[in-house]
Amino acid sequence: MHGLSQLLNDKQAILYHKEDLISYDCDGFTIHKSLPRAVVFPHSTDEVARIVKYCHDHSLPFLARGAGTGLSGGAIPLNNEVIISMVKMKRLIDIDLDNRRAVVEPGYVNLKLTNQIIERGYYYAPDPSSQYCCTIGGNVAENAGGAHCLKYGVTTNHILGLELVLPNGEIVEIGRNGILDEPGYDLLGLITGSEGTLGIVTKIIVRILKNPEGKQTVLAYFDDIEDGSQAVSDIISAGIVPAALEMMDKTAIEGVEAAAFPVGHPKDIAAVLLIEVDGIAAGIDEQIEQILSVCRHRNVREVRAAKDEKERAAWWANRKTGFGAMGAISPDYLVQDGVIPRSKLPEVLRRINKISEEYDLRIANIFHAGDGNLHPLVLFDARVPGETEKALAAGSACLKVCADVGGTITGEHGVGIEKREEMRFVFTDEEIAAQTDIRSVFNTDNLLNAGKLFPSPSRCAEVKKEIKEKIIG
Amino acid sequence: MHGLSQLLNDKQAILYHKEDLISYDCDGFTIHKSLPRAVVFPHSTDEVARIVKYCHDHSLPFLARGAGTGLSGGAIPLNNEVIISMVKMKRLIDIDLDNRRAVVEPGYVNLKLTNQIIERGYYYAPDPSSQYCCTIGGNVAENAGGAHCLKYGVTTNHILGLELVLPNGEIVEIGRNGILDEPGYDLLGLITGSEGTLGIVTKIIVRILKNPEGKQTVLAYFDDIEDGSQAVSDIISAGIVPAALEMMDKTAIEGVEAAAFPVGHPKDIAAVLLIEVDGIAAGIDEQIEQILSVCRHRNVREVRAAKDEKERAAWWANRKTGFGAMGAISPDYLVQDGVIPRSKLPEVLRRINKISEEYDLRIANIFHAGDGNLHPLVLFDARVPGETEKALAAGSACLKVCADVGGTITGEHGVGIEKREEMRFVFTDEEIAAQTDIRSVFNTDNLLNAGKLFPSPSRCAEVKKEIKEKIIG
Repeated sequence: MHGLSQLLNDKQAILYHKEDLISYDCDGFTIHKSLPRAVVFPHSTDEVARIVKYCHDHSLPFLARGAGTGLSGGAIPLNNEVIISMVKMKRLIDIDLDNRRAVVEPGYVNLKLTNQIIERGYYYAPDPSSQYCCTIGGNVAENAGGAHCLKYGVTTNHILGLELVLPNGEIVEIGRNGILDEPGYDLLGLITGSEGTLGIVTKIIVRILKNPEGKQTVLAYFDDIEDGSQAVSDIISAGIVPAALEMMDKTAIEGVEAAAFPVGHPKDIAAVLLIEVDGIAAGIDEQIEQILSVCRHRNVREVRAAKDEKERAAWWANRKTGFGAMGAISPDYLVQDGVIPRSKLPEVLRRINKISEEYDLRIANIFHAGDGNLHPLVLFDARVPGETEKALAAGSACLKVCADVGGTITGEHGVGIEKREEMRFVFTDEEIAAQTDIRSVFNTDNLLNAGKLFPSPSRCAEVKKEIKEKIIG
Repeated sequence: MHGLSQLLNDKQAILYHKEDLISYDCDGFTIHKSLPRAVVFPHSTDEVARIVKYCHDHSLPFLARGAGTGLSGGAIPLNNEVIISMVKMKRLIDIDLDNRRAVVEPGYVNLKLTNQIIERGYYYAPDPSSQYCCTIGGNVAENAGGAHCLKYGVTTNHILGLELVLPNGEIVEIGRNGILDEPGYDLLGLITGSEGTLGIVTKIIVRILKNPEGKQTVLAYFDDIEDGSQAVSDIISAGIVPAALEMMDKTAIEGVEAAAFPVGHPKDIAAVLLIEVDGIAAGIDEQIEQILSVCRHRNVREVRAAKDEKERAAWWANRKTGFGAMGAISPDYLVQDGVIPRSKLPEVLRRINKISEEYDLRIANIFHAGDGNLHPLVLFDARVPGETEKALAAGSACLKVCADVGGTITGEHGVGIEKREEMRFVFTDEEIAAQTDIRSVFNTDNLLNAGKLFPSPSRCAEVKKEIKEKIIG
């Protein structure tokens, strides 16, 4: 690793002893672990470019890592990679309120941006639950979502420009002026959500939004989960676009009430909805009234708006710790991330319930109901032999249900290593081959984050060969 | 052309006599003309695939064409192409109000979709001025915008899925279930706006929106264009996101008042703003009050809200005929389509004014001021020798100004053949080469719509070679 450290201005900014590397053997997807060759901490784009060029020249596999909060294993060094950690590149480079843009380095923490500008009346919209620690670079790689995607869209809708180190060490800029709809192909969209397989992002221009004038949150308890699901559809049908429309089922409520931020949800209810509206102050009350009325029409047990900002914040803290809260009621859990057409919500919840019975594992549901983005949490105990495999199979079965009703296998967590085989639920071999062809344009020798995002490459190569023969033959 | 006609179920659905081909020698960009080899009218995806396969097997250049309203020459047969006209594939395949989606064939006319669903309370948002006749397939190719992009985004923000015939005749689906944020690379974004160079779209899943509860439009006259520009910034800074924020300058007003839908704009004012807000009814009045107050603060001569829907519609008809209206005051005109950071509006308008003086050609400005999308209209007379070239040079100079202040060369009209060389204002040779590399993945033998979108290919090939040598060397 001497060669690598010679490339760094700070020669100490590298780890290669096994005891140091152990912290980097997995990310938020903890089921698979494998050690990196080394971890380097560049401080500038030029350093990143030099490291990448070195890896390229020496055929060393490499990948970039942000805060390591990813949930699908995108930052796990499957091939003993050199990990390029972006956490030292964490500057806020520029804020341009006139044109509603900010420029950050990839290691800059998501929530810091909002904290930096909120008092001037602005914020950064994408809000994954890990936003207090995840990095914007990681958000770009995974096209991260959050509770407020329903109204505001996911990360890709807020990225105006990127600086990128290509897998050969070349530096390019995409959308360098932060103007949307650049001429030519939409490379910005292509890179965003490419899960670190096309290049390493070293600078990001993001869109910032004006704080909404008003905001209010409603909590609604349902005795029947189908009534709750139907209320979700009714709210959207009424023409309301809530900023967030979250749902938790009975098992999830048990978890969040046993964890750090209980708020006193009744233990015997089937579902709780958390519904937030924001916008022009004058419009808020009218929308809240409509939401209350829809919920009552669907046999809600109790429904009310937050009495003050403190209560509103408590409800959100309770919801946002949802995944981690599962630790309070189960030794281990596996988060899934399916997307379905909103109208299929009742059917899919029934089928997930059936999977839970079949596999004899509890499944909690905490999810973005408004945009049909489900998060079944399969609870299991890794110490029981065979239970991890059973949990993985149950998780995969949940995704199959999502795909079967016309949905897809991930909304915001990415494919990583976790859902590679499940890609076949939604893509034909030819469609996967079209995607790996694009990877080859950027990642010519496949040294960057290889083995992620797509099903086993050998099969893809076969398919490509078959297609070529078909065309030529 | 016998071979081609044999592929069609309707053997007559082909034109190849010169007198028939003349109507297809240009599109909305009328400065360059060239004849196609033939025009075929497929009725189904399978027919498109057969035609493309035939062209591929016989090395015949080909391209797809919608209504031919494109403004940058994307559908002009530069290489004597076989034109595949999509106008017979014009079915509305499905409307799914529950999940807010519709499925259309590419030849389906934009405005028809809204007309079809408006009474049930829904509409399709992208609204280019040509929406009464342009096709949704063409909108996808060019990533078309419109007056309401400011709040609702351009076409790419409303496309949920595509069926595509690749340049080898293979049929693939992208986002087949119409779920946003499919796993894998964002091919939907890549295809949308690729100006017909990566494949031929044969089916489109679009997002439909609920009609806003309320809507109101304000008209404001300014004696000083800088006051008008400043009012635009002030409105956005106040946290209002108007559905549309349009501006016309004195020359443009002269045009629209001389054309089909005059509304009595005073002839001596420097600028008119058309500002529309929509959303929850309760919020509209408050926003209108704020807008009136901002305008008064910026020395507006006269400002008022539309007194009824009839007046509102008249104002919009006046604005939407803007480009064509130039015909009333000039024999010919060239529309440009630059984008700038909103804060640079006063400076750029001053510089465009200077270009007008330097080239001794009148330039009218009709534009989407809210999102900084300028449309300088260079007025000229093609019958005067040399004046067309002078107009092209003046247009290019306007785009250079946009690029220089940190903007870009097209917002919604595309590059086509018109702005190929201007791509160099915003991309390095390496960045252009990265894009043509992507084209090669899809369009392997470059038979599909060759010569569009990028500067002269020979130079790009050189650059690619240099880069490769640099990397290897």
